[in-house]
Amino acid sequence: MVNAGVMSGSGNLMDFLDEPFPDVGTYEDFHTIDWLREKSRDTDRHRKITSKSKESIWEFIKSLLDAWSGWVVMLLIGLLAGTLAGVIDLAVDWMTDLKEGVCLSAFWYSHEQCCWTSNETTFEDRDKCPLWQKWSELLVNQSEGASAYILNYLMYILWALLFAFLAVSLVRVFAPYACGSGIPEIKTILSGFIIRGYLGKWTLLIKTVTLVLVVSSGLSLGKEGPLVHVACCCGNFFSSLFSKYSKNEGKRREVLSAAAAAGVSVAFGAPIGGVLFSLEEVSYYFPLKTLWRSFFAALVAAFTLRSINPFGNSRLVLFYVEYHTPWYMAELFPFILLGVFGGLWGTLFIRCNIAWCRRRKTTRLGKYPVLEVIVVTAITAIIAYPNPYTRQSTSELISELFNDCGALESSQLCDYINDPNMTRPVDDIPDRPAGVGVYTAMWQLALALIFKIVVTIFTFGMKIPSGLFIPSMAVGAIAGRMVGIGVEQLAYHHHDWIIFRNWCRPGADCVTPGLYAMVGAAACLGGVTRMTVSLVVIMFELTGGLEYIVPLMAAAVTSKWVADAFGKEGIYEAHIHLNGYPFLDVKDEFTHRTLATDVMRPRRGEPPLSVLTQDSMTVEDVETLIKETDYNGFPVVVSRDSERLIGFAQRRELILAIKNARQRQEGIVSNSIMYFTEEPPELPANSPHPLKLRRILNLSPFTVTDHTPMETVVDIFRKLGLRQCLVTRSGRLLGIITKKDVLRHMAQMANQDPESIMFN
Amino acid sequence: MVNAGVMSGSGNLMDFLDEPFPDVGTYEDFHTIDWLREKSRDTDRHRKITSKSKESIWEFIKSLLDAWSGWVVMLLIGLLAGTLAGVIDLAVDWMTDLKEGVCLSAFWYSHEQCCWTSNETTFEDRDKCPLWQKWSELLVNQSEGASAYILNYLMYILWALLFAFLAVSLVRVFAPYACGSGIPEIKTILSGFIIRGYLGKWTLLIKTVTLVLVVSSGLSLGKEGPLVHVACCCGNFFSSLFSKYSKNEGKRREVLSAAAAAGVSVAFGAPIGGVLFSLEEVSYYFPLKTLWRSFFAALVAAFTLRSINPFGNSRLVLFYVEYHTPWYMAELFPFILLGVFGGLWGTLFIRCNIAWCRRRKTTRLGKYPVLEVIVVTAITAIIAYPNPYTRQSTSELISELFNDCGALESSQLCDYINDPNMTRPVDDIPDRPAGVGVYTAMWQLALALIFKIVVTIFTFGMKIPSGLFIPSMAVGAIAGRMVGIGVEQLAYHHHDWIIFRNWCRPGADCVTPGLYAMVGAAACLGGVTRMTVSLVVIMFELTGGLEYIVPLMAAAVTSKWVADAFGKEGIYEAHIHLNGYPFLDVKDEFTHRTLATDVMRPRRGEPPLSVLTQDSMTVEDVETLIKETDYNGFPVVVSRDSERLIGFAQRRELILAIKNARQRQEGIVSNSIMYFTEEPPELPANSPHPLKLRRILNLSPFTVTDHTPMETVVDIFRKLGLRQCLVTRSGRLLGIITKKDVLRHMAQMANQDPESIMFN
Repeated sequence: MVNAGVMSGSGNLMDFLDEPFPDVGTYEDFHTIDWLREKSRDTDRHRKITSKSKESIWEFIKSLLDAWSGWVVMLLIGLLAGTLAGVIDLAVDWMTDLKEGVCLSAFWYSHEQCCWTSNETTFEDRDKCPLWQKWSELLVNQSEGASAYILNYLMYILWALLFAFLAVSLVRVFAPYACGSGIPEIKTILSGFIIRGYLGKWTLLIKTVTLVLVVSSGLSLGKEGPLVHVACCCGNFFSSLFSKYSKNEGKRREVLSAAAAAGVSVAFGAPIGGVLFSLEEVSYYFPLKTLWRSFFAALVAAFTLRSINPFGNSRLVLFYVEYHTPWYMAELFPFILLGVFGGLWGTLFIRCNIAWCRRRKTTRLGKYPVLEVIVVTAITAIIAYPNPYTRQSTSELISELFNDCGALESSQLCDYINDPNMTRPVDDIPDRPAGVGVYTAMWQLALALIFKIVVTIFTFGMKIPSGLFIPSMAVGAIAGRMVGIGVEQLAYHHHDWIIFRNWCRPGADCVTPGLYAMVGAAACLGGVTRMTVSLVVIMFELTGGLEYIVPLMAAAVTSKWVADAFGKEGIYEAHIHLNGYPFLDVKDEFTHRTLATDVMRPRRGEPPLSVLTQDSMTVEDVETLIKETDYNGFPVVVSRDSERLIGFAQRRELILAIKNARQRQEGIVSNSIMYFTEEPPELPANSPHPLKLRRILNLSPFTVTDHTPMETVVDIFRKLGLRQCLVTRSGRLLGIITKKDVLRHMAQMANQDPESIMFN
Repeated sequence: MVNAGVMSGSGNLMDFLDEPFPDVGTYEDFHTIDWLREKSRDTDRHRKITSKSKESIWEFIKSLLDAWSGWVVMLLIGLLAGTLAGVIDLAVDWMTDLKEGVCLSAFWYSHEQCCWTSNETTFEDRDKCPLWQKWSELLVNQSEGASAYILNYLMYILWALLFAFLAVSLVRVFAPYACGSGIPEIKTILSGFIIRGYLGKWTLLIKTVTLVLVVSSGLSLGKEGPLVHVACCCGNFFSSLFSKYSKNEGKRREVLSAAAAAGVSVAFGAPIGGVLFSLEEVSYYFPLKTLWRSFFAALVAAFTLRSINPFGNSRLVLFYVEYHTPWYMAELFPFILLGVFGGLWGTLFIRCNIAWCRRRKTTRLGKYPVLEVIVVTAITAIIAYPNPYTRQSTSELISELFNDCGALESSQLCDYINDPNMTRPVDDIPDRPAGVGVYTAMWQLALALIFKIVVTIFTFGMKIPSGLFIPSMAVGAIAGRMVGIGVEQLAYHHHDWIIFRNWCRPGADCVTPGLYAMVGAAACLGGVTRMTVSLVVIMFELTGGLEYIVPLMAAAVTSKWVADAFGKEGIYEAHIHLNGYPFLDVKDEFTHRTLATDVMRPRRGEPPLSVLTQDSMTVEDVETLIKETDYNGFPVVVSRDSERLIGFAQRRELILAIKNARQRQEGIVSNSIMYFTEEPPELPANSPHPLKLRRILNLSPFTVTDHTPMETVVDIFRKLGLRQCLVTRSGRLLGIITKKDVLRHMAQMANQDPESIMFN
């Protein structure tokens, strides 16, 4: 911020300072960005464009394009994210069915598509469509019997192993960052951390392909979390096309926030829920301007997906449900019980999963990721096939569990004993006694529940793309449906009990087991992720009515409270900690009574702070200092005696400036004096040429006094997104606090191992 | 933050410093709060409770109660806001009908309730229900004819005048703060400003009562904005019951944020929209924790309102609509046109209304508020009565305009010429040629449109409660419905035109005029308030389907862009500016290139900054300084020569401390030296007793360097909610920047009169 008129000296020097040397203003990998600096760079850029736009029509058009580029990027992200989601859905559909059999008319048709073209289109005949052949029919021309069953079983396992092996190999060879759900890393990146390549084009491609493979392989994982990662990769790709975003890490993160919203929007078909998810869960620095754009991106993505129409039903949402009966106050009790279950499941899952992942990181286990995936896939496939509820894809399972039993429903879950004398409209079927099918379904569901709980713990965290929204929801939906059927039968057989008497007379349709499944799913998802508003809104968008928002909210609140009682961290925060990302959570409250002076470096007994003086150090001194330390930057003081702070110089820029000066400026030698003052003094004729570096000096470093409570310091770091902050007392520089110091201190205060939190 | 162990001296002094003197930590009226300080006070309080809770079970229960008090407050706010909204709805319903006639069976029944009890309950017979008597029937026993008409007309005007007169008198006498919509003031209060009594119990009571009166009087205003104010008054009332909120201005504002969400939630029956409105429009400092609580409060309020069921239809939303046909791409063109209309209306309204309000403030007009209200009411009533669309209440009008014409609709707007040969299901009526009724309705609507536009400009800002959501929506709905009918008839008569050919064959139901009304309403509301996401979400909650979100969004975006092209300020910001509230908008971007040094006081040529020294000023010196200046506080420096900053002392606390010390401490005289150091030096025996003031010294004042870009300073003020910030260079104190300096500078940069922005 130096007045350009003040600058004088050789023309050579002027040139050098006016043209930015390469890589200025960029960051190194695994470093933290400085939000304030990014913001002020963007304002500078904006100012330049505005003043230029008055010069010519061309510049004016360019400035308009620049102003619109934000919307264009959002449009493109929405279109690409929606398209990719549609393609993934279609491919998963086909490949999941491929494990079962193949379509004779065209092998790229899924079971459903295959039978569309056939004549028998009613639902009952779905399994009898002649064009679709199970592997046993195709290979040995048998559709029934033990040998056919075993053949189909084997083909199922073989395909699953093939898909999983392909997926894990692709990830290992081409894009190691494509594994996991990606949400912990995206949270970290959005908080201002640089992980190069995490959102790159390769990651996008490989993650999309492998996501299809792993979901089709039947592993207990979902595509929803990874879709957020995919959408963020799209966001990163498109923002690299516009200099406004590609050259500014802060602005780029605005785009990524919106892309995350678009990702959730296509994952669930819930645009408003997506925006709130982005706001509540992943975004860090969320200017209100972005809210509107996120909403736009989320909507475009949702409608793109709908126009691709992968489910063939013109529905926007993943699990469309429609219930016909209201809920009753007395039902709040089982709903809250489901909330408790969700909270307990969340705690259990997070603890076990983190323990397992830690073991994977620290023992020999982590050295065989391919083998691990193969083994888990084999076990999953072997156990899953015999049980119809685990054999089908998890989203189909959830969908079936959510659905109310209509008159036409052929599912085993709807095998109630009908009263033959009653003819009622389709929608309004009274509670009936359960038939054999329901009882069979109950124990199958119980087995499926145990299986899902165990296998998900081992699946999440393997070196393949894996989300846990769907497995969590499945666990909750199974538990919920079972509770729902239980309450329904209780109410049917004991309708004279005092709690049922008022609302559940015989012949009334009073209990909807599907609603219980939905409430259970919300509770379990809430327990694992600790989402609140966005969770309820996503669920609200699925049902499309405010009617069921109270049960959902009761379960979500209970589940969060129960889970929080055992540990505040959600699964994403736990994984952030496990991986040691420098993430300063906005939601954590820092309530300890420490002061800046307790946290700053140097501590008592440590060597003094490495500083630069404004006019007495030579180039060589500085080079030695840079070589001997690995700090990101150095405070510049008036002199070592007075220690009065005048600014802060970044290490990276110092190195670049010295290198440039040595190459391009004459007379710069090792004992040239470096000046950070506005004007170097007149030097004797024989002294070496001075090196003026005021341009790279940040004249407005952030300072706090040593008495500032750490609470305030943490607040400042969060809200302003600082990298470091200098500590002074009565104007004298005492020390420095970096973001990592803050994180280390917070870990210490929480009785955690402070060394575990560093990026490794 | 001084270590208590360091404190020594006479026991008297210790007592004085340990027990906080009264009023410490409170603010004066029309002052700005310091968010950082409030936050750290709350953390202290929390720490104290946590450490106490381990002492005994009683303390533990108290700490649990404290932790739960946030939820309790939300519950209470939801219940009260919902109840008040229900009561207001019922009362408005009755009093609006009272202008027309009276119920013979019970005078407190509205027209609808009166006829429920009667036998004729079908819709067609509504006007023929014998228990309901128009004034002409009751007074002169005539229901038809010119004299009956004139009598009814007169009674209508008389009641309107009575209601308006009562309202304005009540406001003037009991609660002047009850006037207006309240949203500009609430925005200012939430940004950290103190306006005592604005959210008081009197305001709550009077605003509720007068709101009923003015809405019933038929003035062109709505109850939605004032309901937000009412809900915030509830929030303020309940937060005063819990010391956690009553003693902390920062925490109290968290509650108010949530209350605003509850207000919008009951105003429109849109809880999610309410939360987003609070987030987008009114909240300033919105911690994510509050998001969840706001949602809870909004839901409780919505369900309380629904269980009161003022509309008798079990609907949560204000205007429930259900459309049966999708929209077509070609319709986007009229939708965008409506957006342009909305933007133009917004600009026109804001400009004219602000000009008129400025005239009211500056000329003699403002001295006769009662007369003004009477005159406007009289004019409104006289013009409104003859036109059926202005005679009915504005929300009924909007409701009628939004509705699709079903088969049973008896409205004049649905007077289409039916094809007698066609029998079709109720839902799916094809486009038909317009009948006489529709043409009559068209010109009546045109007149109503002009009338509403003009009268709303003069109504909003009078000294009565007045919201403009409903009038704005009415303007848009009228325009939209007219455009819709136009397009419908065009499509019917010219279905062979190329633009209609693809989707509008004869006999198809292709254009829904009600949807146009809804889009128009969204566009006009958006033009006036510049809401974006929350507007679309509120409208989405009214229709309950994502189907129509694209038209709404297209109109809202267009309207915002058009309106923004003429001026960035929405109506609330414009009124904030007009009233000169110190509101630092989070959405304004500050992009000028000024530095802190350009803004700080003292400027060049001004007398030096008034500072205190740490150990050389006497009590008398300080008292003189306090008397001669009106600053809120003084920086404390080491000495006048070195000017090195050690802290900041609040004026209020200085005054209180000196007053207390003079009363309670022995030996404090005018020439006692005031010490801000940790330990006063040993003094000669005969020197007066020193006054130790380190306890009131803020040892962590916020500082920036003089080279800090103002952009960063503005950001810091916004995000950290500072009152003032000290400016230093190399550790020397140079000046001070207060929030008002920032606002003044921003006004200057925007070429506004900087003096106009101060609170007056």
